[in-house]
Amino acid sequence: MSRFAGVIPPLCTPLDVDGRVDVGSLESLITFQLEAGVQGLFVLGSSGEAIYLTDDDRRKIVDVTTSYVAGQVPVFAGALDASTRRVIDQVRWLSDLAIQALVITAPFYANLSDPEIVGHFTAIAARTELPLIAYDIPGNVGRKLPLRVAQELLESGTISGIKDSSGSLADFRRLLDKQGEDRRSSLLSGADILADIALEIGADGLIPGLANVRPDLFVDLYAAHLRGDKNDVASCQHAILDLVAIFSAGEPFGLGRHASELGGLKYILQREGIIATAVVSPPLTRYPDEGLRALDEIVDRIPR
Amino acid sequence: MSRFAGVIPPLCTPLDVDGRVDVGSLESLITFQLEAGVQGLFVLGSSGEAIYLTDDDRRKIVDVTTSYVAGQVPVFAGALDASTRRVIDQVRWLSDLAIQALVITAPFYANLSDPEIVGHFTAIAARTELPLIAYDIPGNVGRKLPLRVAQELLESGTISGIKDSSGSLADFRRLLDKQGEDRRSSLLSGADILADIALEIGADGLIPGLANVRPDLFVDLYAAHLRGDKNDVASCQHAILDLVAIFSAGEPFGLGRHASELGGLKYILQREGIIATAVVSPPLTRYPDEGLRALDEIVDRIPR
Amino acid sequence: MSRFAGVIPPLCTPLDVDGRVDVGSLESLITFQLEAGVQGLFVLGSSGEAIYLTDDDRRKIVDVTTSYVAGQVPVFAGALDASTRRVIDQVRWLSDLAIQALVITAPFYANLSDPEIVGHFTAIAARTELPLIAYDIPGNVGRKLPLRVAQELLESGTISGIKDSSGSLADFRRLLDKQGEDRRSSLLSGADILADIALEIGADGLIPGLANVRPDLFVDLYAAHLRGDKNDVASCQHAILDLVAIFSAGEPFGLGRHASELGGLKYILQREGIIATAVVSPPLTRYPDEGLRALDEIVDRIPR
Amino acid sequence: MSRFAGVIPPLCTPLDVDGRVDVGSLESLITFQLEAGVQGLFVLGSSGEAIYLTDDDRRKIVDVTTSYVAGQVPVFAGALDASTRRVIDQVRWLSDLAIQALVITAPFYANLSDPEIVGHFTAIAARTELPLIAYDIPGNVGRKLPLRVAQELLESGTISGIKDSSGSLADFRRLLDKQGEDRRSSLLSGADILADIALEIGADGLIPGLANVRPDLFVDLYAAHLRGDKNDVASCQHAILDLVAIFSAGEPFGLGRHASELGGLKYILQREGIIATAVVSPPLTRYPDEGLRALDEIVDRIPR
Repeated sequence: MSRFAGVIPPLCTPLDVDGRVDVGSLESLITFQLEAGVQGLFVLGSSGEAIYLTDDDRRKIVDVTTSYVAGQVPVFAGALDASTRRVIDQVRWLSDLAIQALVITAPFYANLSDPEIVGHFTAIAARTELPLIAYDIPGNVGRKLPLRVAQELLESGTISGIKDSSGSLADFRRLLDKQGEDRRSSLLSGADILADIALEIGADGLIPGLANVRPDLFVDLYAAHLRGDKNDVASCQHAILDLVAIFSAGEPFGLGRHASELGGLKYILQREGIIATAVVSPPLTRYPDEGLRALDEIVDRIPR
Repeated sequence: MSRFAGVIPPLCTPLDVDGRVDVGSLESLITFQLEAGVQGLFVLGSSGEAIYLTDDDRRKIVDVTTSYVAGQVPVFAGALDASTRRVIDQVRWLSDLAIQALVITAPFYANLSDPEIVGHFTAIAARTELPLIAYDIPGNVGRKLPLRVAQELLESGTISGIKDSSGSLADFRRLLDKQGEDRRSSLLSGADILADIALEIGADGLIPGLANVRPDLFVDLYAAHLRGDKNDVASCQHAILDLVAIFSAGEPFGLGRHASELGGLKYILQREGIIATAVVSPPLTRYPDEGLRALDEIVDRIPR
Repeated sequence: MSRFAGVIPPLCTPLDVDGRVDVGSLESLITFQLEAGVQGLFVLGSSGEAIYLTDDDRRKIVDVTTSYVAGQVPVFAGALDASTRRVIDQVRWLSDLAIQALVITAPFYANLSDPEIVGHFTAIAARTELPLIAYDIPGNVGRKLPLRVAQELLESGTISGIKDSSGSLADFRRLLDKQGEDRRSSLLSGADILADIALEIGADGLIPGLANVRPDLFVDLYAAHLRGDKNDVASCQHAILDLVAIFSAGEPFGLGRHASELGGLKYILQREGIIATAVVSPPLTRYPDEGLRALDEIVDRIPR
Repeated sequence: MSRFAGVIPPLCTPLDVDGRVDVGSLESLITFQLEAGVQGLFVLGSSGEAIYLTDDDRRKIVDVTTSYVAGQVPVFAGALDASTRRVIDQVRWLSDLAIQALVITAPFYANLSDPEIVGHFTAIAARTELPLIAYDIPGNVGRKLPLRVAQELLESGTISGIKDSSGSLADFRRLLDKQGEDRRSSLLSGADILADIALEIGADGLIPGLANVRPDLFVDLYAAHLRGDKNDVASCQHAILDLVAIFSAGEPFGLGRHASELGGLKYILQREGIIATAVVSPPLTRYPDEGLRALDEIVDRIPR
């Protein structure tokens, strides 16, 4: 199996005004992404509000996405749940669908030891033929995937890759260094602010939240990286840096981090006519009107 | 509705050697508890390994418990999941069963604002006739239920009580003070080390992990508290303090906190012939033999 | 040596409008405390803003206090600094003054192992004849003094006592239980909300921040505790609970925790005519006028 | 004033067997650094054990360093203390010495609000003519310097630069982006693992702990960066990555993080004959012999 590579946006999940999955908007968002030239799609991640979705919603999203993508690019799906057995319950039905990889966090809720975290991934790997990507997202899971655990899991072949959303490139770089350039594992970064750097230190690909709204910037950045064009990389990255303010735009209005980030991305997608509403999963707070104006200003500043 | 009161052990979930729910052992444990005179039972809590259990296992545990208890004492059930919608999915089927209260944590995984946490409980309350008990367990949820949120939820009647497993009695006391003695809410403490104190400052009842192995001590303590017998309270509490070492007995052997606590309780129940195995849910580590000897020593020191 | 016992307020440090130690106000505050019948005084603690004070200021405060107290009650002094050698520098000059005990935190700034924390206290103990009280204040030091470290230090006689300001009585109770009633060590609690409980589980005394403004309540509570009068204990504690709102009164106005707590206590002392200003050390923010009105309301609610 | 730039090692403080500052070894270490071509020296930082040193020791280190360096390169000095007034006490005497910049953390010990942190730096800036470098080292200070605070301090000219030892390049990059290439501020990175990247995203210079033992690697890396030689940058960085294991070499032997890092660096300097002992400040634990063998192996693997 070759490594996964390129831009693999962690898709938002469009909802209708009643908070149900909006299939039409999801298809429109997928079209928008494929037309931008992304190399893959990741559904049911944190940006996809997977933690807020029921199993029925989750299945619908995977079905719609895999049908619509129809093999043009690989589709990753998150199997988010708090413990090994419950993740395995997700993995069971996900493994029957036309996806190419499963994205799995360490257990959250309880405090586990390092060997127990290894045991978690090992038990899940035994239940599926699909490659597993370990999802290192301490902001949600409560602690960083320890470097030693990541190394052990990669060396044993239990996992096929890492999605590093830890915010720190230091451990990720040590992993890249240990794994080497001939590795078979896919080392993918969730970085927006450091997307160019992640590629430069050897990441195979990017899974950046901002790619929901501007996949073109990341696709161009990745292409420029491949052809070694530092100037183009820099100008894409510069535009990305201007967009980062979206994530915290809701904070002055009292929104929590998740509501600020997800609501910001969805509002911009709605504004661009790609999805129908900016509704986020309850109990996340919606942006007030002044917050939407702040988002408008951020986006209007960026040339297209 | 009157307040819930007395000793309501957070039941362990006995597993067989294959890690499946062991119904016979569960019935035996329930018998042991009822014979000790407990005033209620709490299944599917953290001590019950609920987070590790599939929905099928969870349902089986509630069915067995409610059938076996047959109304002798109230049965609480946890509806543990990471987000509002997913908790509601649990609440839906749990509400059809013969339980008397639902125990609900704040969302974990994502960072929510205070109003979003209020929204979480409000949305759940709208879907069930059962009283909700907010489960304040920062060691697992990742942060303490803010005092202001707890007060707001109690005052609005959204929740009917609190299970305080925060380890700090300070906020709990402020709640007890604000709610007053004529309150309708049930303020319950998860404290083992401070069980006597929790009652003295006005807690209605106790949900202590150590009650799994020595319900008699807590039942006697509660009875002594009710009749104002300080000496008997003190002697029960003294014995409880000696048992607390169970929780950390696995730590010198590298076990994580959950494995140490749950494995310790189960080994003692097995040793006493109440349950068949000390198996804990994967990927939790099992005690090595020296660890079991350490547990033996702790228990052998306590007179019965 | 007998144990330290009773109410030992952690004195505020009155400042003049230029932020210098206000000796007259300090003497007035000491008079107020001694007239209320306190059993000791603790200067240069967290409530005393010691961390904000230069060595000259610190020395002046100890000199004024010991002269003014003139042996009527024991005086404790904090020797707050971030590392062993720098604490020893404090201890050196403090040991020449007429104080009865030194209060010492674990090192802050760097992360130390448990044996290193033991080494810290051992090295300090070797430099002074004065008894050491370990100051367990994780809110400032960054982590709790580990129970095992506290036990080891007490058993070896390196320290003579503990001031528990951890907010959790659980570990403190385990210490009390292990040390036993015949102990020689002084186990003192910084609790306000749980002052009665701390005494009941065996604490020798109290070092509560609110005693700055209402030493009478704590002195009465302690006396009632000694004579076993539960009703009087309860009524004192009830009034104390009403005062606790002082600590967070500044938070709605954007004040940090320290500014809210220290500024609140000082404003009330100023209002009562005991000290001249409510000035706190820079860069702590001062209460806005609406914040002072909130403090007035809290205090006016409490009968004298 | 032009920006500070290049490699500015955070010097270790050599101690003799009695734990006193070893002036001869310090001079030898400075010679070693200057011969390697470093562009500056930073004394009294975290790597310099400043927090463990008395004021007399600190002054001696600055005196020796500035005399010995004699203006060949700029010398930065840390003014580490826990609060504004106490830092000002350090700044007062440091400002009379022949140093070129002061390195200042946010207050530690107490929790301050953002405006209070701004006030801290503002008050210090008012007391010295020397440029201030804000020292962002959350591992020791307990929390990250908030991005907004850093921006405000840079924009107002209160501080002249940042030393980013936060481990995360994301905020640092946002600062670099906001400040722009024409900035007057010096944005310096404490990164070892990401030294090349820090330069590439625009950092003016590096303050990396590993430069103590291999300044040549960082000097070569910086020179290669300036001349745009990506291959040489990569080969220097690759060797640096191999050295990073020094920092955690003590952890399998139970050493705390500080003891592991500082003891590791000093042992290697001793082994190379540059300093006389590997003694670290009490109460830090020393490496056991097996730990020293582990360090030998790490260093022996790196070609010179």
